[in-house]
Amino acid sequence: MTELCDLDATVLRGLIGARQASPVEVLDSCIARIEATNPVLNAMVELCLDEARDAAKQAEQAVGAGAVLGPLHGLPVAIKEAEHVAGLRTTKGSPIYADVVAQADCRMVASIREAGGIVVGKTNVPTLTNGLTTDNPIYGLTRNAFDLERTCAGSSGGAGVALAARMVPLATGSDTGGSIRGPASVSGIVGLRPSPGLVPSEERPQGWSVMTTLGPMARSVADTRLFLQGMMADDCRDPLSGPIDPALFTAGETVDLGGLRVAVSDDLGVADATDSARATFKSKVAQFSGAFGSCEWSAPNMSGIHEVYLKLRSLVHMTRYEPEHQADPSGLTPQSRTDLRRGAEMTARDAAEAIAEHTEIYRRFQAFFQDIDILITPGRTLPFFTLDEIDAANARLAEEEAAGTNDMWAGRGNINAPITMMGHPAVTMPVGKDPGGLPFGIQVVGPYRGDAFLLGVCQSLETLFASKRDLSRPIADVTAF
Amino acid sequence: MTELCDLDATVLRGLIGARQASPVEVLDSCIARIEATNPVLNAMVELCLDEARDAAKQAEQAVGAGAVLGPLHGLPVAIKEAEHVAGLRTTKGSPIYADVVAQADCRMVASIREAGGIVVGKTNVPTLTNGLTTDNPIYGLTRNAFDLERTCAGSSGGAGVALAARMVPLATGSDTGGSIRGPASVSGIVGLRPSPGLVPSEERPQGWSVMTTLGPMARSVADTRLFLQGMMADDCRDPLSGPIDPALFTAGETVDLGGLRVAVSDDLGVADATDSARATFKSKVAQFSGAFGSCEWSAPNMSGIHEVYLKLRSLVHMTRYEPEHQADPSGLTPQSRTDLRRGAEMTARDAAEAIAEHTEIYRRFQAFFQDIDILITPGRTLPFFTLDEIDAANARLAEEEAAGTNDMWAGRGNINAPITMMGHPAVTMPVGKDPGGLPFGIQVVGPYRGDAFLLGVCQSLETLFASKRDLSRPIADVTAF
Repeated sequence: MTELCDLDATVLRGLIGARQASPVEVLDSCIARIEATNPVLNAMVELCLDEARDAAKQAEQAVGAGAVLGPLHGLPVAIKEAEHVAGLRTTKGSPIYADVVAQADCRMVASIREAGGIVVGKTNVPTLTNGLTTDNPIYGLTRNAFDLERTCAGSSGGAGVALAARMVPLATGSDTGGSIRGPASVSGIVGLRPSPGLVPSEERPQGWSVMTTLGPMARSVADTRLFLQGMMADDCRDPLSGPIDPALFTAGETVDLGGLRVAVSDDLGVADATDSARATFKSKVAQFSGAFGSCEWSAPNMSGIHEVYLKLRSLVHMTRYEPEHQADPSGLTPQSRTDLRRGAEMTARDAAEAIAEHTEIYRRFQAFFQDIDILITPGRTLPFFTLDEIDAANARLAEEEAAGTNDMWAGRGNINAPITMMGHPAVTMPVGKDPGGLPFGIQVVGPYRGDAFLLGVCQSLETLFASKRDLSRPIADVTAF
Repeated sequence: MTELCDLDATVLRGLIGARQASPVEVLDSCIARIEATNPVLNAMVELCLDEARDAAKQAEQAVGAGAVLGPLHGLPVAIKEAEHVAGLRTTKGSPIYADVVAQADCRMVASIREAGGIVVGKTNVPTLTNGLTTDNPIYGLTRNAFDLERTCAGSSGGAGVALAARMVPLATGSDTGGSIRGPASVSGIVGLRPSPGLVPSEERPQGWSVMTTLGPMARSVADTRLFLQGMMADDCRDPLSGPIDPALFTAGETVDLGGLRVAVSDDLGVADATDSARATFKSKVAQFSGAFGSCEWSAPNMSGIHEVYLKLRSLVHMTRYEPEHQADPSGLTPQSRTDLRRGAEMTARDAAEAIAEHTEIYRRFQAFFQDIDILITPGRTLPFFTLDEIDAANARLAEEEAAGTNDMWAGRGNINAPITMMGHPAVTMPVGKDPGGLPFGIQVVGPYRGDAFLLGVCQSLETLFASKRDLSRPIADVTAF
């Protein structure tokens, strides 16, 4: 039986605006789903249900009073644990921050509330949002809703699972090397890594770095666009923020695919991809390639991008986590400690050369994009690890670190991070299943600052994949938990 | 007697569009002025008069044919030597590049030609656009048109002098630590350091760095805005480029000053300013303060900005000049060599901390700007050096460098560089004379990305300073040369 919580955000928003569903009913349905599924999945790790109920009642009254309603009016929203929500903890999954309680909302949460969204709680992350899956000493492990023994990826893993289980219709993510796109792929939902600055952050330690961006996650492309409208802003505290493309304010629109020139690549020439990921991607390309004006297998020359990514990530982490590292190295993951060690071995010249090489690869990528409109890759090319495999990999990492034999330049295989460094907006969206019956997503990369165009293309693509609807409803029987 | 070359660009453009002046006549007038004054001033160092005459004839024909004319149609333009113009040398004033001839126009020059501008030649720079005044081993010294024995500053020194002597009505500049704003101040003309990316560059080695921007220089605020319209573009090869504020496409408009909240500061709390600069600035503030809604002496907390500026400049120069340095250190100035030495002593952690501190100071500056609309400072707070003083300072620098005693952290005193690092647009415009009868300019800083608003404010301010017209015509008798 379909509950209110099973409906898409755009549908719910329509029902609320038409007084066919009350924000209180919608919230209650979500709370019931959280109570039914979260004890097993552990996707939501902080809850503020009393405040949410108060907000839902006020939202209900606003509808009754005929007030002008924001784009997210009455919609339950989950916030990633790493972002500040007034009165809730922001531990980032690390004992270092176990006692941090936010005094005020961050800008993004304030925007969401202004748009009418109702914050119900926070979603789980890996320690310091950096790890192989979503697990940490504060809140423990989050499980994939499609297979409880497999990874939900990270770092926005709790958000992906909360959406897949329909605990909430909208959840925020953040993405440095794929932290929105990877979890979206393995949870069969949609995630947008927007153009840097479109969802502004007043907290990024390096304001002009394109690496980390906030962004929306949801169960359909239209929902993702709606959520983006409630998150985006022009805020000078984020120097990459700026005037917003008016096309993003309009309701969801599709783009005619027949005139578009598309490039497809299963590895961008730089990512390690499993044979399974390559084969599944090839079969998906066969399903959509005929819809485009042209669709060619080709990749930009991104040679060197992984090393540039690791070096610049080290630069960011040195200013984000160094004091914490000094205070208590055990509060960091092996990955974060490796970033700091790599950075400590670098000279300023190494940093300067990486910064310049970043720009060189970026300009090659722009030249490649002169001849195409859209670039499509698999959403994730890593194996769909079991939790046992994750445990083994983490144990190996810890051993290697203790022995001083870990490879500080590891970290290849990720097909999301190269796109991160280009600053282009990218959507990961579900396009059916892999041969194992698990969700499979594609990464759709738009032109520079072309968020509105990209979302239009993805909305058209979504209609091509009839199986999507099944995929976005992984839990057939919630009483199983 | 007023010649065509003495008229403002906006006036000339109006005459050309109304068929009251021909592009050929305008060019001939500028060439006559160049021939009369440049042998002494040495502001223009490369000329392409044959190509310019051909272009002027074509422009004349286009007017006759009733073609749609670009904003710069038929206007003579000078390009800074450091930017590529097809067929002309780009030596940057260094023997290292003595034989470089550009194969193609850079993007900015292509934009200017598309807008109808007629390139007549290139203007002088310090060696590698980095030095105390505009002088180099390739082209020699440029002299200030108001006092032949004083500095014209740098690095867009040739552009400032070419405008002051009315050799051309429009000249391009580029600005890292004040290279548009300093020369504009000492040549009694107007210079805009635009928001980074507004005049895109496909050549900056570090694409996301806000430090170096291209920009327009002219003899009035309206001319500066007109020139900007012919230079600005959205070009993804510059990642700081983006959609252009529609207000910038409209004709020159003023802003009512009566409602504005203004902060004035003679040193921003961080610059060394001469007593003379402070006193002159104070007298100028007295002339305009009553025009604003409020005008308070206050400064943002920019503590630490000079060290951040020097560290990040070293990072940029390490990727811009290191190969040249290895090949021939003598092709660099002491200043550039000092940048490279400073960088060589820095670790990646030093770089990362400077990058993060940059963002911290930037956010403090945004908080300060929450309460004001415009910030005004002197255009330049350094002494108005004589050429003898420059020679003595350079000799001292060379001695200290040879002895290994030079202070790698010198470089204070500049009131332009702190604004550079904030990414805000800034205009330097003439506001009369100093007690010595030499030009005095103010630096007017607009809100983040507020180029259109800033230009409107400056246009209103310009009308307050009746003496401006005299100031912008320094050479009473060109036959004196």
